[in-house]
Amino acid sequence: MEPPSLNDVSAPGRVADAGEGIGADELALAARNHGLPLEALRYEVTPPGLHYVLVHYDIPEADGAVWRLSVGGHVRTPLSLDLAALRALPSVTCRVTMECAGNGRARLSPRPVSQPWLVEAVGTADWTGVPLRAVLDAAGVRPEAVEAVFTGADHGVERGVEQDYRRSLALPAGEDVLIAHTMNGRPLPPQHGYPLRLVVPGWYGMAHVKWLRDISLVDRPFTGFQQSVAYRFRHTPDEPGEPVTRIAPRALLVPPGFPDFMSRTRVVHPGPVRLEGRAWSGYGPVVRVEFSPDGGLTWADAEVTPPGTHPGAWQAWRAQWTATPGSHTLAVRATDATGRTQPPDQPWNRGGFGNNAVQRVPVLCC
Amino acid sequence: MEPPSLNDVSAPGRVADAGEGIGADELALAARNHGLPLEALRYEVTPPGLHYVLVHYDIPEADGAVWRLSVGGHVRTPLSLDLAALRALPSVTCRVTMECAGNGRARLSPRPVSQPWLVEAVGTADWTGVPLRAVLDAAGVRPEAVEAVFTGADHGVERGVEQDYRRSLALPAGEDVLIAHTMNGRPLPPQHGYPLRLVVPGWYGMAHVKWLRDISLVDRPFTGFQQSVAYRFRHTPDEPGEPVTRIAPRALLVPPGFPDFMSRTRVVHPGPVRLEGRAWSGYGPVVRVEFSPDGGLTWADAEVTPPGTHPGAWQAWRAQWTATPGSHTLAVRATDATGRTQPPDQPWNRGGFGNNAVQRVPVLCC
Repeated sequence: MEPPSLNDVSAPGRVADAGEGIGADELALAARNHGLPLEALRYEVTPPGLHYVLVHYDIPEADGAVWRLSVGGHVRTPLSLDLAALRALPSVTCRVTMECAGNGRARLSPRPVSQPWLVEAVGTADWTGVPLRAVLDAAGVRPEAVEAVFTGADHGVERGVEQDYRRSLALPAGEDVLIAHTMNGRPLPPQHGYPLRLVVPGWYGMAHVKWLRDISLVDRPFTGFQQSVAYRFRHTPDEPGEPVTRIAPRALLVPPGFPDFMSRTRVVHPGPVRLEGRAWSGYGPVVRVEFSPDGGLTWADAEVTPPGTHPGAWQAWRAQWTATPGSHTLAVRATDATGRTQPPDQPWNRGGFGNNAVQRVPVLCC
Repeated sequence: MEPPSLNDVSAPGRVADAGEGIGADELALAARNHGLPLEALRYEVTPPGLHYVLVHYDIPEADGAVWRLSVGGHVRTPLSLDLAALRALPSVTCRVTMECAGNGRARLSPRPVSQPWLVEAVGTADWTGVPLRAVLDAAGVRPEAVEAVFTGADHGVERGVEQDYRRSLALPAGEDVLIAHTMNGRPLPPQHGYPLRLVVPGWYGMAHVKWLRDISLVDRPFTGFQQSVAYRFRHTPDEPGEPVTRIAPRALLVPPGFPDFMSRTRVVHPGPVRLEGRAWSGYGPVVRVEFSPDGGLTWADAEVTPPGTHPGAWQAWRAQWTATPGSHTLAVRATDATGRTQPPDQPWNRGGFGNNAVQRVPVLCC
């Protein structure tokens, strides 16, 4: 008999068969992780517990009193910082909209089998912390260093590979990258990375390494699992693919009226309906939001709040609609300053990453 | 053509076909609502955002500055209390374990189609508020009053019935029933009922009416949707059924080792493994927790912490296991002071309520 191995419990990535319902494995992920209930788009800063959460493995047990962040590799002076040392450094606060790279995956056909997000894997928080640059400057970046590798304390297996969650950023990293110790004015909640996480404004969530315990500078590009195997845009399992990086533009609507419990279909009464929501892009400010009352046949401009003092955060938008008896499909789409916009139908990729298809909200008016 | 009606978007309750995967409607609920990630059983008091959440309709927009709780019906002096008036009354703090009545539903066969919980719809919080009795005493309960009906501000449709969420309790209600304004020392989060909710220690979650805005005393039993249609133990759609009330005993294990991302199967290395978890019952203290290393073939007593000063909260338990290479199924079960315990297989009911089948945790040791 073969000795037991990780491959007994950890299978290669796969795509669901046509018509295959959500499986027990996908459901177990959906029951643990959660999205933003769309009515919570009403809050500029997402209240605790409503911001989306994706934990790859387990939320690690973390004791802030003994936590150390080590900084090593190709640096002049390796560091080992406790929380007091980090909190003593000058800190900044950024309002940042974060979205999971797999948002929208469960609407793809065929469906990549993973965390089955519909459209709600987003949230906005005020993150306070120390600029990554200040910590790297303190350690002294050696000239041969090309990337910083960030290691979190969450440990697990994925497609047969036992690992700590680990991702890299090319150097120099953005000036806005933070080592955050505070979320909305309070210590990070356990599920958001207590006591320390990386915040990389404009990037999908996989870059914002939680439970950060080590930064290592390396002299060649990092090729770990989460960088080179997961989080690539691919059509076939074997191509290298392009890396997943910044957040594609998206607008979401606070679903109007009230819902049916089971279908979540919205019900409104005839008459004027004020519509509102949020829009964001990791490539630049949103310059246009359009609303369609007929599922995308016709579009009209909505009113968009300018980006203001928080370039990493979503922008509010609003529109007016007059509901008439019958069934309707509302739709909304954002365009950013680079000209990127949202497709009516989602181009498919094997990991289900970077989706930003136009949101469609069925509404019954009666 | 028929005019549009609520029945166009709101269907009768149903049970899934044999082998039918989780549907888009169930997934939409799973993406909004969430359970306790089982590793968070390590916390005696569940941190914010990890406590399970079930919102029937939408989280309502609530302004604490203008919120009023009205108390009327068969009382001597109808009241309309603002938050300042409620906070001025003597308050108490209770540690309470809450569980959704539908916990475990998605493991039933055939599966009732609703929020598809596996086993994680639980959490424990310190709730601070005013005893219901103090508010009812202030209003003066008339002798003909037999029940109090509690109305929340969440509004929606369910199986064709447009409603505010509404439930009743028989009078006199328990001395421990609270009108809570504070959770873990802070104002209630929006998803947990801000600014006011009922807390009914020992009862499943459906009784703890959130966004509480009205209490009406009635002189005959309340027969609203959530009392007489939903939340009944039934085998056929037409029988009246028995009401869902108190929480059946359950023990859960913090899954040991580390998980595979997709299968969530646990991996441990050979050797001694410390096991721990929580156990609770709405009928009385848990007096015994048993652990099985072989899927329920053999059982041994675990060590259980006595209930102590928080009779409404779960109790910690621990056990020791020596892992040997191969595949194992760990199991755990609780028995309370009334002799109620957990079945190896779940008796079926049409709503998927009151499940407390023994938890089974597959573990690979290698």
